[in-house]
Amino acid sequence: MVDISRGSTLGGSGASELFQLLRDGSPRTRAELAAKTGVARSTIALRVEELMSLGLVSPVEDAQSTGGRPSSQFALNASAKFVLAADLGATHATIAVSNLGGAIVGETMGSIDIADGPPVVLNWLIKTARALLKKHGLLMIDILAVGIGLPGPVEHSSGRPINPPIMPGWDQFDVAGFVSEQLDVPVLVDNDVNIMALGEQAFGWPQTENLLFVKVGTGIGAGVISGGRLLRGAQGIAGDIGHVQIARGAGVACHCGNRGCLEALASGPAIARTLSAAGLDVDGPAAVVDLVKHGNIEAIQAVRQAGRDLGEVLTACVSLMNPSVIAVGGSMAAVGDHLIAGVREIIYTRSMPLATSKLTIVQSAAGVNAAVLGAGILAIHHALSPEGIDRMTA
Amino acid sequence: MVDISRGSTLGGSGASELFQLLRDGSPRTRAELAAKTGVARSTIALRVEELMSLGLVSPVEDAQSTGGRPSSQFALNASAKFVLAADLGATHATIAVSNLGGAIVGETMGSIDIADGPPVVLNWLIKTARALLKKHGLLMIDILAVGIGLPGPVEHSSGRPINPPIMPGWDQFDVAGFVSEQLDVPVLVDNDVNIMALGEQAFGWPQTENLLFVKVGTGIGAGVISGGRLLRGAQGIAGDIGHVQIARGAGVACHCGNRGCLEALASGPAIARTLSAAGLDVDGPAAVVDLVKHGNIEAIQAVRQAGRDLGEVLTACVSLMNPSVIAVGGSMAAVGDHLIAGVREIIYTRSMPLATSKLTIVQSAAGVNAAVLGAGILAIHHALSPEGIDRMTA
Repeated sequence: MVDISRGSTLGGSGASELFQLLRDGSPRTRAELAAKTGVARSTIALRVEELMSLGLVSPVEDAQSTGGRPSSQFALNASAKFVLAADLGATHATIAVSNLGGAIVGETMGSIDIADGPPVVLNWLIKTARALLKKHGLLMIDILAVGIGLPGPVEHSSGRPINPPIMPGWDQFDVAGFVSEQLDVPVLVDNDVNIMALGEQAFGWPQTENLLFVKVGTGIGAGVISGGRLLRGAQGIAGDIGHVQIARGAGVACHCGNRGCLEALASGPAIARTLSAAGLDVDGPAAVVDLVKHGNIEAIQAVRQAGRDLGEVLTACVSLMNPSVIAVGGSMAAVGDHLIAGVREIIYTRSMPLATSKLTIVQSAAGVNAAVLGAGILAIHHALSPEGIDRMTA
Repeated sequence: MVDISRGSTLGGSGASELFQLLRDGSPRTRAELAAKTGVARSTIALRVEELMSLGLVSPVEDAQSTGGRPSSQFALNASAKFVLAADLGATHATIAVSNLGGAIVGETMGSIDIADGPPVVLNWLIKTARALLKKHGLLMIDILAVGIGLPGPVEHSSGRPINPPIMPGWDQFDVAGFVSEQLDVPVLVDNDVNIMALGEQAFGWPQTENLLFVKVGTGIGAGVISGGRLLRGAQGIAGDIGHVQIARGAGVACHCGNRGCLEALASGPAIARTLSAAGLDVDGPAAVVDLVKHGNIEAIQAVRQAGRDLGEVLTACVSLMNPSVIAVGGSMAAVGDHLIAGVREIIYTRSMPLATSKLTIVQSAAGVNAAVLGAGILAIHHALSPEGIDRMTA
């Protein structure tokens, strides 16, 4: 169904918007909230009342208020409740507790093998989360929801991975149901690039409604936020740009079975292969980063070229979605400006002036924390949605 | 602000969803509406009450209802109110009256010159609309809103064209304000490809939330519906894919000042130039369509190649937004399956299997009516948004 209304809402999205406005901790009046969300003051009042009765929002002493009148300003009680956030990678995982402002109040990192399958990995997640809560003096009753990022395609509405290439045993597994049954709170699941986009947006660009987060590591993928919302697409694989063919890719075989894919030429392993073939002693992406940091000219050139390859695909993305920020993250972002320089070179050369006049192309601001921050945001948004609030008041 | 809530809403988008559910004219119960929109029944009841009090929704005789109990089913009164829809092109315009179901109840076509500037063209629009209402026995009081499509980039939030290349005198002109002042109803303005996407979606693919509408005519552009919403982007130019460079474009000058753009090789005039250079008697895009319809092999080959060029750019779009439908419209769509065949050839060759397993690539179902139908939808959505309903009850 098409939503083309100009105003914002206080339904599913509106509660999130209200929350977004309050998330920075600044006090706001009902009138300010109504003006910013474009929603009727009566509706805002109702929602604020509801959040106040739950203790999530509190009145704030009003500087100009004169004796006797109730305060007209409200602010979020960021530490009234918490969420659990999990970023599961192929071999590493981070579990965190975030407050309602999205700030991480505690985290645990661990080694996992995603190929151990869902019960082993998810039981580890649950055990680790419980230990983390205990360490910080929190109980499950303090937790409103859990957000989980997985290294593969996920059907967000059901919380199940769909044909994930590096996750044997996870296809169609009910991740949300499994965790929810044991922790008894709502569980939201998404792929890692999507939650990285959420983390990047919330922590680096809170005012930006059109952001493209590009992860360059072992693979290449993007998380797309457009009109303030994460795009998922028909099969939940929106942003899967690693297998778009690029001009110089002709003939280069990709692990997907096709040829000339972006990922086959510009991913970390691809750059490492290029340098290795040129005779350098490079055994993987980390060695590429190392060489670039030591000023090796071949490595810098290879990374710059990978940036251009990425820029070629991103030029089409810029035309299609007209973002105001492109943030590049993932392990290869550690090479610094050389990769971004290649991206900028192509996008600024090829795109229409209006599309680039206010376009910022930068390294991820959230950095290595993007994923776990985003998993927290995923959980917070759900917890403060009407559905989540209904659950609290039930 | 990011909205990642799973449930739907009855705020700005929710009212539209409720309307979408009712727009087909089928009766529905509150419980059905609540289930489909994912919103609390109490909220649904409130909204249905509001729409009933405005006469926009009526109770429907319930087959199973037993005497004395009020009917539990509701349906839209599609002809309770109407909207005006205008599709303004460079030299042609269509003005229509649509009912709340989106169906056109009357229309007028006329010749205009968009270069005459806003006052001349918009006064013609207003005069023509008034005459059309009179002809159909309607008054302005029957009209809830006006939707206008323009042949250039539009800042939707302000209703102003932004640097439109073929619309001298229109840059930054307050189109919405000008028309609204004279007709005293809300006026929504958008670019023609966006409204074509809305028209295509509403009338060809009402269940589809991820649709890419591609217009191939004098220029090439796309309207992007993702997650049920029209994407606009940071400057309102999302979908402006005509100037993405393509592999075989190297060196070919484009009117935008760059080289190798899709539009410079695959638009109607570009195909005509190619055929003309090959010695055929082709004086424009219409002649290309004519040749193809007569089975001319060079023309068919040129159109097929244009389809491949388009497919090259659309492959990146498929990866980025994961649509379930790509509909090709615009004047060149009249060449039929030859253009679509080229698009399919490239997309199905290059895209990941999951992205194309359920992807439909077809000619526009709405055809020449897409734009004016979409302009009506634009107006209806606003009229039935909380903002529009507030206006009716005020």
